[in-house]
Amino acid sequence: MKELEAYRIGLIGNGSWATAIAKILSKNLSNIRWWVKDDFVKGHLIRSKHNPTYLTDVEFNPDQFIISTDINEVVFESDIIFLVVPSIYVEKCLERLNVPLKDKILVSSIKGIVPNHYLAVNEFLHQKHQVPTENMGVISGPCHAEEVALERLSYLTVAHQDPKMAEMIANCLRCDFIQAKITDDVIGTEYGAILKNIYAIAAGIAHGVGYGDNFQAVLMSNAIREMERLLYTIDWRDRDINDSAYLGDLLVTGYSFFSRNRMFGNMIGKGYTVKSAILEMNMVAEGYYATRGVYEMKDKFEVKCPIISAVYKILYQGKNPKKVMDKLTKKLD
Amino acid sequence: MKELEAYRIGLIGNGSWATAIAKILSKNLSNIRWWVKDDFVKGHLIRSKHNPTYLTDVEFNPDQFIISTDINEVVFESDIIFLVVPSIYVEKCLERLNVPLKDKILVSSIKGIVPNHYLAVNEFLHQKHQVPTENMGVISGPCHAEEVALERLSYLTVAHQDPKMAEMIANCLRCDFIQAKITDDVIGTEYGAILKNIYAIAAGIAHGVGYGDNFQAVLMSNAIREMERLLYTIDWRDRDINDSAYLGDLLVTGYSFFSRNRMFGNMIGKGYTVKSAILEMNMVAEGYYATRGVYEMKDKFEVKCPIISAVYKILYQGKNPKKVMDKLTKKLD
Repeated sequence: MKELEAYRIGLIGNGSWATAIAKILSKNLSNIRWWVKDDFVKGHLIRSKHNPTYLTDVEFNPDQFIISTDINEVVFESDIIFLVVPSIYVEKCLERLNVPLKDKILVSSIKGIVPNHYLAVNEFLHQKHQVPTENMGVISGPCHAEEVALERLSYLTVAHQDPKMAEMIANCLRCDFIQAKITDDVIGTEYGAILKNIYAIAAGIAHGVGYGDNFQAVLMSNAIREMERLLYTIDWRDRDINDSAYLGDLLVTGYSFFSRNRMFGNMIGKGYTVKSAILEMNMVAEGYYATRGVYEMKDKFEVKCPIISAVYKILYQGKNPKKVMDKLTKKLD
Repeated sequence: MKELEAYRIGLIGNGSWATAIAKILSKNLSNIRWWVKDDFVKGHLIRSKHNPTYLTDVEFNPDQFIISTDINEVVFESDIIFLVVPSIYVEKCLERLNVPLKDKILVSSIKGIVPNHYLAVNEFLHQKHQVPTENMGVISGPCHAEEVALERLSYLTVAHQDPKMAEMIANCLRCDFIQAKITDDVIGTEYGAILKNIYAIAAGIAHGVGYGDNFQAVLMSNAIREMERLLYTIDWRDRDINDSAYLGDLLVTGYSFFSRNRMFGNMIGKGYTVKSAILEMNMVAEGYYATRGVYEMKDKFEVKCPIISAVYKILYQGKNPKKVMDKLTKKLD
C-alpha cells in the first residue's frame, strides 16, 4: 500500500459537516481538492477564507486547497475522496459525473438514506456507481461540526474493511482536537449514523410534547437496544453497540442542543407541521428522510422498531405527536 | 405468598428521593408508616402537608401516613420497608434500632456506598443487620425526584431474587406516571446505581473544565462499558447493560441538570474545592462517597476503570481536574 503522501485527496461538499472535515483535513494535508456547489462559495472561500454560510468562524488557508465547482475535475484528480454532502443531494451531486468513481477510494461521512432509492450512501455508490466494497469507507463519530469549529476535543471512527486503509484515513484526521479509532464494521457504522438521527428526532418530539429527563433516558436506553437489533439484522457481526460510533453518536445527537435532528423533532413536538419545521431550519435534518427510508426497509429486517415506527407515523402519516408518544411509552421499558 | 394488602408498609427517609417515593407509594397505599428524622419534619408534614425542605411542592394527605420519628416503631410495625436515606446516614439511622431487621423485607433505594465500611447498602444490611439475601430488594431507575414531584412519566426497576416479590413491590409503585419493570439482578442493579453517580461527577468535571458535547458522548459511551466490566466482575450474570436500570440511569444522571452529582462535578471542574462544593450544595452528592468506596474496592475487581480512577484522583488526591481529564482523554475511545 502506498504512503498517505502518495494519495491525492479530494473533498466533496460545502455544508457544515463538510466544512468541519475540511478544517480537520487541513491540519494534516495540503493540496486538498475541494468541490463546492457554486462560484459564490468558491469565491468566498478564496477571498475571505471562510465558508459564507456554515461554520463561518472557521478560517481557511486557501493555499492548502484547490477549490473547484467542477465535480469531474475533483474526482478525476483525486485518489481518496471524502464525500460529505447531505444524503438528499448525493444523487444530484453525482449525476453530473462523467468520470468513473469505481477506481477511487470513497470515504463517506453522510449520515442518511438516499431518497427514492432507500439505500444507504455506500449501497447507492455500489449499485449506481459501481464502487466496489473494498474501495468504500465511512467516517462517523459523536461529532457536531460546531464543536469541531471550536476545536473542542472530538472522537471519530473510521470504518474500512482493510485496517491499513482505515488507519491511513484515520491519520488524515488525527490532530490535537481529533482522536480517531478504526473498525472494519463499515455497514454497522454507516447504519448506526443513519439510525441515530431518527432517534434524535424522537428525543426532540418527546421533549416537545412535554416528557422530561427521566423519560428521555428511558427513550435513549430503548433506542440503543432498537439500534442493536436493527444492526444485527442488517449485518450480523460481533460489535459492541456501546462503542462511541454507535452509542456515543446516538447520545451526542439525542442530547445536544447543537443537534438539528433533535431540534427538528422538538419543533414537531411543539406543534409545527413538518413543512414549517423544515422551512424554519436552515439545515437539513437527515433523520427526516432516514425515517422514511428505514421504515420502508423495516419489513425486510423483521425486527421490532417501535421508536422508528412512532416517528414515521408522526412525520409521514400526520398522526398527533402527543398521542403517538403516549402509545410508545407503553412499549418501552 | 401473601397479597399486597396483607403487608404493612414502612418508609425510612425524608430527603428528596424519600419524599418522591412517599408520593409514589401514596398513589396506591394508605397507612404507610413513614419515619422522618425529627419533629420539625413530622410536624410540617402533618400540619402543612409538605416536606419542609425537599420537593416542597408535593402535597401529602396526612391521613395516608403514620408519621413517626421513632425508627423502632416504624420497623417493628412494618413488613416491607422502603429504605431511602442517603448512604452516609444509613449506619447512623439504623444504629438506634433495637428491633431486628432480619425478618423484614428491605427495599433499598439508596444509591451509594456506606462510608467506612466500603459496602453497598444491601451488603451492609446483610453483614451488620443479618438481613438474609432473600429478604432484600432494590429500586432503581432513571428517575430524578424532581420529575416525580411534577408527575412526569418515569420508569423504575425493582430488583428482587423472587419475581413474585419483585412484582408485588413493583405494584406498590406503578401509577399513572410510574412504570415499573422487574429483574432478579439485585446486585447489578444496586451497583449500577452506585457507579452511575461517579460517572455523573466525571461528566460534570468534564463540562466544568471545558469539554463539549462531543466529548461528553464519548465519556458516557466509555462509562457504560466501564460499568459493564465492573458489574460482570462484581456479579457475573447475563444482563443487558443498556436496560433502563443501568444505561438509562447513567444517562439521566450524567446529562440532566437536575443531577446533583453532575452539578457537584461541574463545580469541581470550575475550580471549587471539594469542601466548598459540598457546602454550596444543600444536598448530598452520593457519588463523592461512592468514588472512594469503589476505588478502595477496585483492586479486588481487577478491571480497568480509568474514569473512576480519574475522579478519585481529583476528589481525594487533590489532583488538578483539567490535567487529570486531559490524561483520561487518551485512555478513552
